[in-house]
Amino acid sequence: TIQHLFKQIFQASLTLIEDNHNKGLLVSRKRKSKDTVIDLGTVQIGDGIPKIVAGPCSVESEEQVFQVAEVMARQGVKMIRGGAFKPRTSPYDFQGLGLEGLQILRRVADHFGLKVISEIMSPADVEMATRYVDVIQVGARNMQNFDLLRAVGSASTPVLLKRGLAATMEEFLFAAEYIVSSGNDQVVLCERGIRTYEKWTRNTLDISAVPLIKQESHLPVMVDVTHSAGRKDLLLPLAKAAFAAGADAVMVETHPNPSVALSDSRQQIDLPTFEQFMTQLRESRFLPELLGTR
Amino acid sequence: TIQHLFKQIFQASLTLIEDNHNKGLLVSRKRKSKDTVIDLGTVQIGDGIPKIVAGPCSVESEEQVFQVAEVMARQGVKMIRGGAFKPRTSPYDFQGLGLEGLQILRRVADHFGLKVISEIMSPADVEMATRYVDVIQVGARNMQNFDLLRAVGSASTPVLLKRGLAATMEEFLFAAEYIVSSGNDQVVLCERGIRTYEKWTRNTLDISAVPLIKQESHLPVMVDVTHSAGRKDLLLPLAKAAFAAGADAVMVETHPNPSVALSDSRQQIDLPTFEQFMTQLRESRFLPELLGTR
Amino acid sequence: TIQHLFKQIFQASLTLIEDNHNKGLLVSRKRKSKDTVIDLGTVQIGDGIPKIVAGPCSVESEEQVFQVAEVMARQGVKMIRGGAFKPRTSPYDFQGLGLEGLQILRRVADHFGLKVISEIMSPADVEMATRYVDVIQVGARNMQNFDLLRAVGSASTPVLLKRGLAATMEEFLFAAEYIVSSGNDQVVLCERGIRTYEKWTRNTLDISAVPLIKQESHLPVMVDVTHSAGRKDLLLPLAKAAFAAGADAVMVETHPNPSVALSDSRQQIDLPTFEQFMTQLRESRFLPELLGTR
Amino acid sequence: TIQHLFKQIFQASLTLIEDNHNKGLLVSRKRKSKDTVIDLGTVQIGDGIPKIVAGPCSVESEEQVFQVAEVMARQGVKMIRGGAFKPRTSPYDFQGLGLEGLQILRRVADHFGLKVISEIMSPADVEMATRYVDVIQVGARNMQNFDLLRAVGSASTPVLLKRGLAATMEEFLFAAEYIVSSGNDQVVLCERGIRTYEKWTRNTLDISAVPLIKQESHLPVMVDVTHSAGRKDLLLPLAKAAFAAGADAVMVETHPNPSVALSDSRQQIDLPTFEQFMTQLRESRFLPELLGTR
Repeated sequence: TIQHLFKQIFQASLTLIEDNHNKGLLVSRKRKSKDTVIDLGTVQIGDGIPKIVAGPCSVESEEQVFQVAEVMARQGVKMIRGGAFKPRTSPYDFQGLGLEGLQILRRVADHFGLKVISEIMSPADVEMATRYVDVIQVGARNMQNFDLLRAVGSASTPVLLKRGLAATMEEFLFAAEYIVSSGNDQVVLCERGIRTYEKWTRNTLDISAVPLIKQESHLPVMVDVTHSAGRKDLLLPLAKAAFAAGADAVMVETHPNPSVALSDSRQQIDLPTFEQFMTQLRESRFLPELLGTR
Repeated sequence: TIQHLFKQIFQASLTLIEDNHNKGLLVSRKRKSKDTVIDLGTVQIGDGIPKIVAGPCSVESEEQVFQVAEVMARQGVKMIRGGAFKPRTSPYDFQGLGLEGLQILRRVADHFGLKVISEIMSPADVEMATRYVDVIQVGARNMQNFDLLRAVGSASTPVLLKRGLAATMEEFLFAAEYIVSSGNDQVVLCERGIRTYEKWTRNTLDISAVPLIKQESHLPVMVDVTHSAGRKDLLLPLAKAAFAAGADAVMVETHPNPSVALSDSRQQIDLPTFEQFMTQLRESRFLPELLGTR
Repeated sequence: TIQHLFKQIFQASLTLIEDNHNKGLLVSRKRKSKDTVIDLGTVQIGDGIPKIVAGPCSVESEEQVFQVAEVMARQGVKMIRGGAFKPRTSPYDFQGLGLEGLQILRRVADHFGLKVISEIMSPADVEMATRYVDVIQVGARNMQNFDLLRAVGSASTPVLLKRGLAATMEEFLFAAEYIVSSGNDQVVLCERGIRTYEKWTRNTLDISAVPLIKQESHLPVMVDVTHSAGRKDLLLPLAKAAFAAGADAVMVETHPNPSVALSDSRQQIDLPTFEQFMTQLRESRFLPELLGTR
Repeated sequence: TIQHLFKQIFQASLTLIEDNHNKGLLVSRKRKSKDTVIDLGTVQIGDGIPKIVAGPCSVESEEQVFQVAEVMARQGVKMIRGGAFKPRTSPYDFQGLGLEGLQILRRVADHFGLKVISEIMSPADVEMATRYVDVIQVGARNMQNFDLLRAVGSASTPVLLKRGLAATMEEFLFAAEYIVSSGNDQVVLCERGIRTYEKWTRNTLDISAVPLIKQESHLPVMVDVTHSAGRKDLLLPLAKAAFAAGADAVMVETHPNPSVALSDSRQQIDLPTFEQFMTQLRESRFLPELLGTR
């Protein structure tokens, strides 16, 4: 019985310590119970209405982005993604168009009334990026690039923070804390699959991350189904699952001609498939609100 | 260009080899395109209508099972689960009531018109089990206990096969193939989370497994949200995600008094919480059909 | 400072609880500080002298085993391994020669004065196996096949228990506890690599497992370098690392003609390579004692 | 038989493609068969003689570094490590002394004739770092911070590149390729444990990485046993295993008073333990050469 008592003290201690630990975080729901909504003007993330973000893996040309944006606009999608600065495993792979890529995105997005999400990899590029993009993406490989986190935290442009390849939920929230504690509270957290032993998918979509973040934090949650699956045939069911689990938005990659794409040619869907994806999402009982996006 | 040609031949070869490999499997959709439906008489698994399986982790007493079954029946749930032979990490933990547990399950289930799902761990117990249960469960730790797979494959009672702790999808389907090739084609595949580095959940629910199995196989798919999460507060969003991804059924553990449960006391929900879980599932836009289960 | 005090109490509690937990185990060094030595008559495991276990993945014919054993004997290796009951992912792969395989192993081993290690997968086969083998192997897939653990625990033949594909150290020791608490304290623990995301090796040899087991338990430790690496070119450095970390024995697979082996053809080394492996181990500064095995 | 032929073509194709892929890399042994030796003047890494790198996790004060360096010098250790720019999960944890930390390291190192290894996290800090350190460390979290890789690749100071938390071997070598292809071929690769499900160690030391890198690349290999284990009681056996597997150097953290260290207080060893560690390494049959370091 003394052992029992002891156990209780122990458990209580444990809870107390963890409570203290998390209560302090600016990203914690304990500090701010109300959902953070990212307001991009013509579209919001975290307002309770499911959103789709689409676009090519890499920006390759103005024509390519135009073709994608045209279909997106027709489908009522308001946010375009596209990589201009590409984090590539090999230094010999296509590294992106850089500044020119951001300029293409901006011009095409403005033409169709879209908002732009694009990744940067260097603190030195933050200021430049804020002139062209509406949301700065911090990629999975840079989730613990603390200098970059502080740099985007000093800007006023909203940030899309992707979960690291093998980051724990705790590390993910602390990475967001770096941004918010630097002054920028406009952060969206993006689950994009974690690295496991399974080989039939490129990564393992950790669907539990969605409700966990919603519970622990007030920040909105996005799910990148393309990088999670790494294959085209799972995008629709994973998008449904993401929304069912409480995600605020789903990101999907689409390209006018995936087979010749300069990156991720295996996992991007072509434009007719993207339209079909949107139609099926809208027709499913899961997403009546998406109807409103048309 | 010769390199390009070469690449194409290579890819074609790869596809061909894999095709040949999978086409042969009895569990493959290439061998049988029509969905397998497990017909338990008063309830089916795989008929397109989402189902819930509920019950305590361990059978502890007739009274305990009775209390659970009463609530389940009120909620329109038709299948009860409960452990009589318990696979426990430590030999000093509660090992289950054995035969007596199966008898309790059967009596209570018959009283409420429920179907029984329970695990056995030894080939020697198969025949005995078939007298008491409607579905024999093969647990995660025994997914590659090939003697057990062959033994349940020789029976005519349907089998619920759980994915191993760190089994690949390929190994999972091959384990099912052991059962089906032994003569029993009544197999349900159950995703229950895989082992990863993440610590905020007991296991990582591999939601992609659901659409992958539905594509590759004609067998029905269940998702055990309790073992996936290992915590009570994620069950509802994970159940919704599972159905949204295409699962035929969801399994959840409930106990009249979880805090004194002889196993898994942290992750079982109490009966009022279970009723709330059912109500919220039914009220969600995701599961109108569950209304019909009442 | 009160927080600091609190932290100390907390840490002390944690240590105490874990201490109590582990002290109870029969496999724990806290219960028995002296190393367990498995005495097979002409050879011991755990006596402080590094040992090699070798042999083919599967027993295929008497001639095949004879060829291997001949080279082994010449190299001073005293223990032969060979699979007669094979756990195979696919039901259509070679399942082993069964009883005939054990009989071949016994006859050849007796001819060369070797000891036999072979796997069984069913509790029903334990008694039969004890008539032919000197050490019963419980494979990785059966590490938590508790019926099998209890069955080999009731025999008096020593047991080689392999770590599960993704078993924690704690689960591994508890699995051994099932055997020892059933009455058989002659258990060797075998690390054989765990499942991770890394693709250049079949499994990831968890070298830390060796000193961890030596600290926590009095049981001897073996390392299966063949299954850890899943490739031939790492066997020598991994064997050296295993011994340097404190392993009592190393297991390696060798086959007269690996390219036509009925299982694991990619990872078995041929006999000249095996002789070279032994020579290089012996010549290395790491294993002077192996000289004595010649 | 046509299928057999087909398989052979397939395998040949596979090998050819991979060969082409790797042959191109500057870090590949296929491009340069001779071992790269990092020459720091009074000490070399990769010259065939095992080396130890030691020092505190974080630089906290000149006195602290002095105490450590004094013991190191007495033990014949020539390279001191210490963190001045600390990558910390939480923004509220000690972030390091920055420039002042590097200056302390330099002064103390010069006093004892040691070489300095220290981490920087920002491309902007490279030039400054080259004035104080002999080897720039790129930490695990920044292994794919491509801007940083290019920046250190443009410097002429040698680089210690740590493997990412869950990086594959392929990604690790490609990260090194970013540095070498930017002009700096003085790179040491450091295995520091990977993230797995196992909980008794902080990370899982992937010992196979050592011989794999030695085979695939001409660059020297270090093993950080402190971060691999995350506990003090495994350092000696892991260091032995690292050297046995072919590592050129082992890194270990030591602190005058670990219990009050500002970071990693659980895993740093105190100075008497460090001296014991060195003595035991030297006395072991594994490292006669270390005698020469005294």
